[in-house]
Amino acid sequence: MSNNTKGRLVVVSGPSGVGKGTVLEYVLKRDDFVYSVSATTRKPRDIDEDGVTYFFKQREEFEAMIAGGELIEYAEYNGNYYGTPKFFVEKMLSEGKNVILEIEVKGAMQIKKLVPDAVFVFIAPESRKVLEDRLRGRGTEEESVIANRLAIAEREIKCCLMYDYIVINRQGGAENCAEDIVSAVRAENFRPVNMYGSVEEFFN
Amino acid sequence: MSNNTKGRLVVVSGPSGVGKGTVLEYVLKRDDFVYSVSATTRKPRDIDEDGVTYFFKQREEFEAMIAGGELIEYAEYNGNYYGTPKFFVEKMLSEGKNVILEIEVKGAMQIKKLVPDAVFVFIAPESRKVLEDRLRGRGTEEESVIANRLAIAEREIKCCLMYDYIVINRQGGAENCAEDIVSAVRAENFRPVNMYGSVEEFFN
Repeated sequence: MSNNTKGRLVVVSGPSGVGKGTVLEYVLKRDDFVYSVSATTRKPRDIDEDGVTYFFKQREEFEAMIAGGELIEYAEYNGNYYGTPKFFVEKMLSEGKNVILEIEVKGAMQIKKLVPDAVFVFIAPESRKVLEDRLRGRGTEEESVIANRLAIAEREIKCCLMYDYIVINRQGGAENCAEDIVSAVRAENFRPVNMYGSVEEFFN
Repeated sequence: MSNNTKGRLVVVSGPSGVGKGTVLEYVLKRDDFVYSVSATTRKPRDIDEDGVTYFFKQREEFEAMIAGGELIEYAEYNGNYYGTPKFFVEKMLSEGKNVILEIEVKGAMQIKKLVPDAVFVFIAPESRKVLEDRLRGRGTEEESVIANRLAIAEREIKCCLMYDYIVINRQGGAENCAEDIVSAVRAENFRPVNMYGSVEEFFN
Protein backbone atom coordinates (compact mmCIF):
# COMPACT_ATOMS: atom_id res chain seq x y z
CA MET A 1 0.00 0.00 0.00
CA SER A 2 2.68 2.49 -0.96
CA ASN A 3 0.38 4.90 -2.73
CA ASN A 4 -2.71 5.05 -0.56
CA THR A 5 -2.94 5.81 3.09
CA LYS A 6 -6.52 4.56 2.97
CA GLY A 7 -7.17 0.84 2.85
CA ARG A 8 -9.39 -0.99 0.42
CA LEU A 9 -12.43 -3.20 0.89
CA VAL A 10 -11.55 -6.69 -0.38
CA VAL A 11 -14.60 -8.80 -1.18
CA VAL A 12 -13.73 -12.50 -1.28
CA SER A 13 -15.97 -15.29 -2.54
CA GLY A 14 -15.40 -18.92 -3.40
CA PRO A 15 -17.37 -22.15 -3.32
CA SER A 16 -17.77 -24.31 -0.26
CA GLY A 17 -14.83 -26.72 -0.06
CA VAL A 18 -12.32 -24.46 -1.83
CA GLY A 19 -10.41 -23.73 1.39
CA LYS A 20 -11.17 -20.02 1.78
CA GLY A 21 -10.59 -20.15 5.53
CA THR A 22 -7.00 -21.37 5.29
CA VAL A 23 -6.12 -18.94 2.52
CA LEU A 24 -7.57 -15.97 4.40
CA GLU A 25 -5.71 -16.97 7.58
CA TYR A 26 -2.48 -16.46 5.62
CA VAL A 27 -3.66 -13.12 4.23
CA LEU A 28 -4.63 -11.94 7.73
CA LYS A 29 -1.11 -12.62 9.04
CA ARG A 30 -0.19 -9.37 7.29
CA ASP A 31 -0.48 -6.19 9.36
CA ASP A 32 -2.34 -4.30 6.68
CA PHE A 33 -5.22 -6.78 6.37
CA VAL A 34 -8.10 -7.24 8.81
CA TYR A 35 -11.25 -9.28 8.70
CA SER A 36 -14.60 -7.51 8.64
CA VAL A 37 -16.42 -8.17 11.92
CA SER A 38 -20.15 -8.82 11.37
CA ALA A 39 -23.06 -7.80 13.53
CA THR A 40 -25.52 -10.55 14.50
CA THR A 41 -28.58 -11.16 16.63
CA ARG A 42 -27.61 -14.73 17.44
CA LYS A 43 -26.71 -15.49 21.07
CA PRO A 44 -22.96 -15.39 21.92
CA ARG A 45 -21.28 -18.76 22.52
CA ASP A 46 -18.39 -19.46 24.89
CA ILE A 47 -15.70 -18.73 22.30
CA ASP A 48 -17.36 -15.49 21.21
CA GLU A 49 -16.06 -12.08 22.15
CA ASP A 50 -18.13 -8.97 21.41
CA GLY A 51 -16.39 -6.84 18.78
CA VAL A 52 -13.94 -9.63 17.89
CA THR A 53 -15.91 -12.62 16.60
CA TYR A 54 -19.13 -10.58 16.14
CA PHE A 55 -20.84 -7.45 17.30
CA PHE A 56 -23.75 -8.90 19.28
CA LYS A 57 -26.99 -6.96 18.95
CA GLN A 58 -30.56 -7.24 20.13
CA ARG A 59 -33.11 -7.70 17.38
CA GLU A 60 -34.42 -4.14 17.84
CA GLU A 61 -30.90 -2.72 17.69
CA PHE A 62 -30.17 -4.65 14.49
CA GLU A 63 -33.41 -3.50 12.88
CA ALA A 64 -32.57 0.08 13.83
CA MET A 65 -29.20 -0.38 12.05
CA ILE A 66 -31.01 -1.64 8.95
CA ALA A 67 -33.43 1.30 9.05
CA GLY A 68 -30.58 3.76 9.60
CA GLY A 69 -28.58 2.47 6.61
CA GLU A 70 -25.77 1.42 8.93
CA LEU A 71 -25.14 -1.93 7.25
CA ILE A 72 -23.32 -2.54 3.96
CA GLU A 73 -25.34 -5.73 3.54
CA TYR A 74 -27.36 -8.05 5.73
CA ALA A 75 -29.26 -11.32 5.55
CA GLU A 76 -31.32 -13.52 7.84
CA TYR A 77 -30.40 -17.20 8.44
CA ASN A 78 -32.19 -19.55 10.84
CA GLY A 79 -34.08 -16.68 12.41
CA ASN A 80 -30.98 -14.59 13.14
CA TYR A 81 -29.73 -11.49 11.38
CA TYR A 82 -26.14 -11.21 10.15
CA GLY A 83 -24.76 -8.06 8.56
CA THR A 84 -21.69 -5.94 7.84
CA PRO A 85 -21.61 -2.70 9.85
CA LYS A 86 -20.33 0.28 7.89
CA PHE A 87 -18.72 1.94 10.92
CA PHE A 88 -16.25 -0.90 11.48
CA VAL A 89 -15.26 -1.17 7.82
CA GLU A 90 -14.85 2.60 7.50
CA LYS A 91 -12.80 2.88 10.69
CA MET A 92 -10.40 0.16 9.48
CA LEU A 93 -10.14 1.65 5.97
CA SER A 94 -9.34 5.08 7.44
CA GLU A 95 -6.56 3.44 9.48
CA GLY A 96 -5.05 2.15 6.23
CA LYS A 97 -6.17 -1.46 6.69
CA ASN A 98 -7.51 -3.54 3.82
CA VAL A 99 -10.74 -5.04 5.09
CA ILE A 100 -11.60 -8.57 3.99
CA LEU A 101 -15.26 -9.32 3.58
CA GLU A 102 -15.96 -12.99 2.86
CA ILE A 103 -19.36 -13.27 1.28
CA GLU A 104 -21.22 -15.46 -1.21
CA VAL A 105 -21.64 -14.46 -4.83
CA LYS A 106 -25.04 -12.75 -4.63
CA GLY A 107 -24.01 -10.61 -1.67
CA ALA A 108 -20.77 -9.71 -3.44
CA MET A 109 -22.64 -8.42 -6.46
CA GLN A 110 -24.76 -6.18 -4.22
CA ILE A 111 -21.59 -4.72 -2.72
CA LYS A 112 -20.23 -4.04 -6.21
CA LYS A 113 -23.01 -1.50 -6.65
CA LEU A 114 -22.60 0.04 -3.19
CA VAL A 115 -18.78 0.18 -2.96
CA PRO A 116 -17.48 0.56 -6.50
CA ASP A 117 -13.84 0.93 -5.42
CA ALA A 118 -13.83 -2.38 -3.54
CA VAL A 119 -11.68 -5.09 -5.11
CA PHE A 120 -13.43 -8.39 -5.85
CA VAL A 121 -11.46 -11.62 -5.58
CA PHE A 122 -12.77 -15.09 -6.36
CA ILE A 123 -11.00 -18.17 -4.98
CA ALA A 124 -11.47 -21.10 -7.37
CA PRO A 125 -10.46 -24.76 -7.00
CA GLU A 126 -7.82 -26.19 -9.30
CA SER A 127 -10.30 -28.65 -10.82
CA ARG A 128 -13.76 -30.11 -10.43
CA LYS A 129 -12.16 -33.39 -9.34
CA VAL A 130 -10.25 -31.72 -6.48
CA LEU A 131 -13.33 -29.81 -5.37
CA GLU A 132 -15.44 -32.96 -5.39
CA ASP A 133 -12.83 -34.83 -3.35
CA ARG A 134 -12.77 -32.01 -0.80
CA LEU A 135 -16.55 -31.84 -0.51
CA ARG A 136 -16.69 -35.61 -0.17
CA GLY A 137 -13.84 -35.67 2.35
CA ARG A 138 -15.76 -33.50 4.79
CA GLY A 139 -18.01 -36.23 6.12
CA THR A 140 -20.04 -39.27 5.45
CA GLU A 141 -22.90 -37.63 3.58
CA GLU A 142 -24.95 -39.44 0.99
CA GLU A 143 -24.21 -39.14 -2.71
CA SER A 144 -27.23 -36.92 -3.27
CA VAL A 145 -25.96 -34.44 -0.66
CA ILE A 146 -22.52 -34.36 -2.29
CA ALA A 147 -24.04 -33.95 -5.74
CA ASN A 148 -26.16 -31.06 -4.51
CA ARG A 149 -23.18 -29.30 -2.92
CA LEU A 150 -21.14 -29.76 -6.06
CA ALA A 151 -23.95 -28.32 -8.18
CA ILE A 152 -24.14 -25.24 -5.92
CA ALA A 153 -20.36 -24.84 -6.01
CA GLU A 154 -20.31 -25.06 -9.80
CA ARG A 155 -23.04 -22.46 -10.09
CA GLU A 156 -20.99 -20.14 -7.90
CA ILE A 157 -17.79 -20.74 -9.87
CA LYS A 158 -19.60 -19.73 -13.06
CA CYS A 159 -19.88 -16.23 -11.54
CA CYS A 160 -16.10 -15.89 -11.12
CA LEU A 161 -15.70 -13.92 -14.36
CA MET A 162 -17.55 -11.00 -12.75
CA TYR A 163 -14.77 -10.59 -10.19
CA ASP A 164 -11.71 -8.36 -10.64
CA TYR A 165 -9.27 -11.19 -9.93
CA ILE A 166 -9.54 -14.98 -9.89
CA VAL A 167 -7.00 -16.92 -7.85
CA ILE A 168 -6.64 -20.69 -7.62
CA ASN A 169 -6.18 -22.44 -4.29
CA ARG A 170 -4.04 -25.38 -5.38
CA GLN A 171 -3.47 -28.44 -3.19
CA GLY A 172 -0.94 -27.41 -0.56
CA GLY A 173 -0.79 -23.95 -2.08
CA ALA A 174 -2.88 -21.90 0.35
CA GLU A 175 0.04 -19.66 1.31
CA ASN A 176 0.84 -18.99 -2.34
CA CYS A 177 -2.83 -18.27 -3.02
CA ALA A 178 -2.78 -15.76 -0.16
CA GLU A 179 0.23 -14.04 -1.77
CA ASP A 180 -1.73 -13.89 -5.02
CA ILE A 181 -4.55 -12.09 -3.23
CA VAL A 182 -2.13 -9.65 -1.59
CA SER A 183 -0.56 -8.92 -5.01
CA ALA A 184 -3.99 -8.33 -6.52
CA VAL A 185 -4.99 -5.87 -3.78
CA ARG A 186 -1.67 -4.06 -4.11
CA ALA A 187 -1.91 -3.94 -7.92
CA GLU A 188 -5.48 -2.63 -7.78
CA ASN A 189 -4.09 0.59 -6.32
CA PHE A 190 -1.98 1.08 -9.45
CA ARG A 191 -4.86 0.93 -11.93
CA PRO A 192 -5.17 4.31 -13.67
CA VAL A 193 -8.62 4.91 -12.20
CA ASN A 194 -7.10 4.69 -8.71
CA MET A 195 -3.87 6.55 -9.52
CA TYR A 196 -5.26 9.65 -11.17
CA GLY A 197 -5.02 11.62 -7.92
CA SER A 198 -1.29 10.91 -7.72
CA VAL A 199 -0.53 12.28 -11.20
CA GLU A 200 -3.28 14.92 -11.42
CA GLU A 201 -0.74 17.75 -11.07
CA PHE A 202 0.60 16.91 -14.54
CA PHE A 203 -2.83 17.31 -16.10
CA ASN A 204 -3.35 20.89 -14.90
CA MET B 1 3.59 -16.78 -11.54
CA SER B 2 1.65 -19.52 -9.90
CA ASN B 3 -0.94 -19.84 -12.65
CA ASN B 4 1.03 -19.54 -15.86
CA THR B 5 4.04 -21.45 -16.99
CA LYS B 6 4.45 -18.88 -19.75
CA GLY B 7 5.88 -15.48 -18.92
CA ARG B 8 4.45 -12.13 -19.83
CA LEU B 9 5.81 -9.22 -21.83
CA VAL B 10 6.10 -6.23 -19.49
CA VAL B 11 6.27 -2.91 -21.33
CA VAL B 12 7.71 -0.18 -19.11
CA SER B 13 7.73 3.54 -19.87
CA GLY B 14 8.46 6.65 -17.84
CA PRO B 15 9.88 10.10 -18.41
CA SER B 16 13.57 10.90 -18.47
CA GLY B 17 14.73 11.56 -14.90
CA VAL B 18 12.16 9.35 -13.18
CA GLY B 19 14.77 6.73 -12.27
CA LYS B 20 13.58 3.82 -14.45
CA GLY B 21 17.07 2.27 -14.48
CA THR B 22 17.34 1.89 -10.70
CA VAL B 23 13.79 0.56 -10.37
CA LEU B 24 14.29 -2.01 -13.13
CA GLU B 25 17.58 -3.16 -11.60
CA TYR B 26 15.58 -4.19 -8.53
CA VAL B 27 12.93 -5.92 -10.64
CA LEU B 28 15.62 -7.83 -12.54
CA LYS B 29 17.07 -9.22 -9.30
CA ARG B 30 14.13 -11.62 -9.40
CA ASP B 31 14.69 -14.91 -11.22
CA ASP B 32 11.47 -14.69 -13.19
CA PHE B 33 12.24 -11.33 -14.82
CA VAL B 34 14.67 -10.68 -17.68
CA TYR B 35 15.44 -7.64 -19.74
CA SER B 36 14.66 -7.70 -23.44
CA VAL B 37 17.93 -7.62 -25.39
CA SER B 38 17.71 -5.32 -28.41
CA ALA B 39 19.28 -5.74 -31.81
CA THR B 40 21.31 -2.81 -33.14
CA THR B 41 23.51 -1.82 -36.04
CA ARG B 42 25.71 0.42 -33.92
CA LYS B 43 29.32 -0.70 -33.40
CA PRO B 44 30.04 -2.68 -30.21
CA ARG B 45 31.96 -0.83 -27.47
CA ASP B 46 34.39 -2.35 -24.96
CA ILE B 47 31.71 -3.11 -22.37
CA ASP B 48 29.40 -4.68 -24.96
CA GLU B 49 28.84 -8.40 -25.26
CA ASP B 50 26.90 -9.80 -28.19
CA GLY B 51 23.63 -11.31 -27.00
CA VAL B 52 23.95 -9.71 -23.56
CA THR B 53 24.02 -5.93 -23.98
CA TYR B 54 22.78 -6.09 -27.60
CA PHE B 55 22.55 -8.40 -30.57
CA PHE B 56 24.99 -6.72 -32.98
CA LYS B 57 23.89 -6.81 -36.62
CA GLN B 58 25.11 -5.52 -39.94
CA ARG B 59 22.80 -3.04 -41.62
CA GLU B 60 21.75 -5.59 -44.26
CA GLU B 61 21.02 -8.20 -41.60
CA PHE B 62 18.89 -5.71 -39.65
CA GLU B 63 16.97 -4.70 -42.76
CA ALA B 64 16.35 -8.36 -43.53
CA MET B 65 14.91 -8.74 -40.00
CA ILE B 66 12.60 -5.78 -40.64
CA ALA B 67 11.50 -7.23 -43.98
CA GLY B 68 10.95 -10.66 -42.44
CA GLY B 69 8.76 -9.30 -39.61
CA GLU B 70 11.29 -10.51 -37.06
CA LEU B 71 11.13 -7.36 -34.91
CA ILE B 72 8.38 -6.38 -32.49
CA GLU B 73 9.32 -2.73 -32.99
CA TYR B 74 12.29 -0.79 -34.29
CA ALA B 75 13.48 2.77 -34.75
CA GLU B 76 16.49 4.59 -36.15
CA TYR B 77 18.57 6.98 -34.00
CA ASN B 78 21.72 8.78 -35.09
CA GLY B 79 21.99 6.65 -38.19
CA ASN B 80 21.76 3.34 -36.30
CA TYR B 81 18.87 0.91 -36.09
CA TYR B 82 17.61 -0.36 -32.73
CA GLY B 83 14.86 -2.95 -32.44
CA THR B 84 13.31 -5.71 -30.34
CA PRO B 85 13.80 -9.19 -31.84
CA LYS B 86 10.77 -11.44 -31.51
CA PHE B 87 12.84 -14.63 -31.19
CA PHE B 88 14.53 -13.54 -27.95
CA VAL B 89 11.30 -12.35 -26.33
CA GLU B 90 9.44 -15.51 -27.36
CA LYS B 91 12.22 -17.80 -26.12
CA MET B 92 12.24 -16.09 -22.71
CA LEU B 93 8.42 -16.10 -22.45
CA SER B 94 8.32 -19.81 -23.26
CA GLU B 95 10.85 -20.39 -20.46
CA GLY B 96 8.41 -18.74 -18.06
CA LYS B 97 10.33 -15.46 -17.76
CA ASN B 98 8.60 -12.10 -17.71
CA VAL B 99 10.40 -9.99 -20.30
CA ILE B 100 10.85 -6.29 -19.54
CA LEU B 101 10.82 -4.00 -22.52
CA GLU B 102 11.69 -0.42 -21.63
CA ILE B 103 10.38 1.84 -24.35
CA GLU B 104 9.03 5.36 -24.78
CA VAL B 105 5.32 6.08 -24.96
CA LYS B 106 4.84 6.01 -28.74
CA GLY B 107 6.63 2.70 -29.11
CA ALA B 108 4.62 1.27 -26.22
CA MET B 109 1.33 2.13 -27.90
CA GLN B 110 2.48 0.32 -31.05
CA ILE B 111 3.20 -2.77 -28.97
CA LYS B 112 -0.26 -2.59 -27.40
CA LYS B 113 -1.68 -3.36 -30.84
CA LEU B 114 0.81 -6.12 -31.62
CA VAL B 115 0.95 -7.91 -28.24
CA PRO B 116 -2.45 -7.41 -26.61
CA ASP B 117 -1.62 -9.65 -23.63
CA ALA B 118 1.45 -7.63 -22.68
CA VAL B 119 1.14 -5.68 -19.43
CA PHE B 120 1.84 -1.96 -19.65
CA VAL B 121 3.42 -0.21 -16.66
CA PHE B 122 4.15 3.50 -16.40
CA ILE B 123 6.68 4.78 -13.86
CA ALA B 124 5.72 8.31 -12.77
CA PRO B 125 7.57 10.77 -10.52
CA GLU B 126 6.04 11.72 -7.18
CA SER B 127 5.70 15.38 -8.24
CA ARG B 128 6.68 17.89 -10.90
CA LYS B 129 9.03 19.52 -8.37
CA VAL B 130 10.91 16.25 -7.75
CA LEU B 131 11.15 15.54 -11.48
CA GLU B 132 12.45 19.03 -12.18
CA ASP B 133 15.07 18.71 -9.43
CA ARG B 134 16.23 15.39 -10.86
CA LEU B 135 16.44 16.71 -14.41
CA ARG B 136 18.31 19.76 -13.14
CA GLY B 137 20.61 17.70 -10.93
CA ARG B 138 21.94 15.77 -13.89
CA GLY B 139 24.32 18.49 -15.08
CA THR B 140 24.96 22.11 -15.67
CA GLU B 141 22.61 22.62 -18.62
CA GLU B 142 21.02 25.95 -19.38
CA GLU B 143 17.53 26.79 -18.22
CA SER B 144 16.13 26.44 -21.72
CA VAL B 145 17.44 22.86 -21.97
CA ILE B 146 15.91 21.96 -18.59
CA ALA B 147 12.60 23.58 -19.55
CA ASN B 148 12.54 21.62 -22.79
CA ARG B 149 13.25 18.30 -21.02
CA LEU B 150 10.57 19.02 -18.48
CA ALA B 151 8.06 19.80 -21.22
CA ILE B 152 8.83 16.48 -22.97
CA ALA B 153 8.55 14.61 -19.64
CA GLU B 154 5.20 16.20 -18.88
CA ARG B 155 3.89 15.30 -22.32
CA GLU B 156 4.89 11.67 -21.70
CA ILE B 157 3.33 11.60 -18.23
CA LYS B 158 0.01 12.73 -19.73
CA CYS B 159 -0.05 9.36 -21.57
CA CYS B 160 0.17 7.36 -18.33
CA LEU B 161 -3.60 6.78 -18.17
CA MET B 162 -3.33 4.54 -21.24
CA TYR B 163 -1.19 2.07 -19.29
CA ASP B 164 -2.54 -0.87 -17.28
CA TYR B 165 -0.74 0.17 -14.11
CA ILE B 166 0.88 3.41 -12.92
CA VAL B 167 3.53 3.18 -10.21
CA ILE B 168 5.30 6.06 -8.48
CA ASN B 169 9.05 6.06 -7.95
CA ARG B 170 9.26 8.02 -4.71
CA GLN B 171 12.51 9.49 -3.39
CA GLY B 172 14.46 6.59 -1.91
CA GLY B 173 11.65 4.21 -2.85
CA ALA B 174 13.03 2.47 -5.95
CA GLU B 175 12.96 -0.97 -4.30
CA ASN B 176 9.36 -0.46 -3.21
CA CYS B 177 8.45 0.74 -6.71
CA ALA B 178 10.02 -2.45 -8.11
CA GLU B 179 7.82 -4.49 -5.75
CA ASP B 180 4.82 -2.58 -7.04
CA ILE B 181 5.71 -3.59 -10.60
CA VAL B 182 6.18 -7.24 -9.60
CA SER B 183 2.76 -7.20 -7.88
CA ALA B 184 1.15 -5.68 -10.96
CA VAL B 185 2.63 -8.34 -13.26
CA ARG B 186 1.56 -11.10 -10.87
CA ALA B 187 -1.94 -9.65 -10.50
CA GLU B 188 -2.33 -9.30 -14.26
CA ASN B 189 -2.35 -13.10 -14.46
CA PHE B 190 -5.41 -13.21 -12.21
CA ARG B 191 -7.59 -10.92 -14.33
CA PRO B 192 -10.58 -12.94 -15.61
CA VAL B 193 -9.47 -12.55 -19.22
CA ASN B 194 -6.22 -14.34 -18.34
CA MET B 195 -7.75 -16.90 -15.98
CA TYR B 196 -10.52 -18.27 -18.15
CA GLY B 197 -8.39 -21.22 -19.22
CA SER B 198 -7.93 -22.25 -15.59
CA VAL B 199 -11.66 -22.40 -14.83
CA GLU B 200 -12.95 -23.35 -18.29
CA GLU B 201 -13.82 -26.87 -17.11
CA PHE B 202 -16.64 -25.42 -14.98
CA PHE B 203 -18.22 -23.72 -17.99
CA ASN B 204 -18.62 -26.91 -20.02
